[in-house]
Amino acid sequence: MVSWQQKLQKKLGFPHRVLFLEREILEKAYEEIMKNGFPKSAINYIHEKAVETLASDPEVELIADGTRRDDRVPVLSISQIRSIEDRLGVQYICPLKGYGKKTVSILVERYLRIEEGPSESTQKADYEAELRELIRQRDGEEKIKELFPSHIQSHVLSRKKLP
Amino acid sequence: MVSWQQKLQKKLGFPHRVLFLEREILEKAYEEIMKNGFPKSAINYIHEKAVETLASDPEVELIADGTRRDDRVPVLSISQIRSIEDRLGVQYICPLKGYGKKTVSILVERYLRIEEGPSESTQKADYEAELRELIRQRDGEEKIKELFPSHIQSHVLSRKKLP
Repeated sequence: MVSWQQKLQKKLGFPHRVLFLEREILEKAYEEIMKNGFPKSAINYIHEKAVETLASDPEVELIADGTRRDDRVPVLSISQIRSIEDRLGVQYICPLKGYGKKTVSILVERYLRIEEGPSESTQKADYEAELRELIRQRDGEEKIKELFPSHIQSHVLSRKKLP
Repeated sequence: MVSWQQKLQKKLGFPHRVLFLEREILEKAYEEIMKNGFPKSAINYIHEKAVETLASDPEVELIADGTRRDDRVPVLSISQIRSIEDRLGVQYICPLKGYGKKTVSILVERYLRIEEGPSESTQKADYEAELRELIRQRDGEEKIKELFPSHIQSHVLSRKKLP
């Protein structure tokens, strides 16, 4: 199967693989979102487990996370980061952590072609997709709209040619 | 006057200028350190005023701060950063903010030649120098040792030639 993610990674020049997580992580995230009524802690939980799973792979020495300064979800706290680095012997970095929204927009505009749209219809590889699907199956379409505030997401199409 | 900073900026290929701050900032920092008995809030105060002064220069559009993830002083809070960006119309970035101590050490080792030593004797361009000098003049050498915990600082000598 050649997914759009695989086509994209070739365009961008990054190697790509899909990480499959334990099913129980999704179940625990489902419990969290149902308990809280909004997705923040569920998404943060999936993110933490994803980073931990990667960090536990003996071949992984360094994890670069796409979190930016103004991102609120998903984000690891400094103590979660130190715990993962110390327990699992990896380096965890967030190259965009020191960059605000305006600067990120300027960099994106200069270097990338992107597509933006509402989160429910944009093709993307985030943690919401499976959680949304599980809620759809168990609680129906309406419940998703209730739990996930509509927001704009973007995905990268390709690099721009630099002058 | 050609300072070691000016020689260094030529070696590194960065333009360099010295920013002179209002004397009252140093006086306020002196009050802070005397009140608290340790330098944290005094240094943070000088740092905030330095960034604000730069941000108020109409020619300055972007400020890149050297703060790293594990730095505790000097560091701006997210609300101080947003306030400076919004009030003064600049972009403030911390390119190393998402990088922990270990990763920074690896990057330094790969790209830079540095010199390390105790903070009181290392040639450096930080906010402590003038504050230390003011305390020396007013309260004597012993008071400096009492207020500033001894720590290792480093300064960059040159870039390494990349293979």
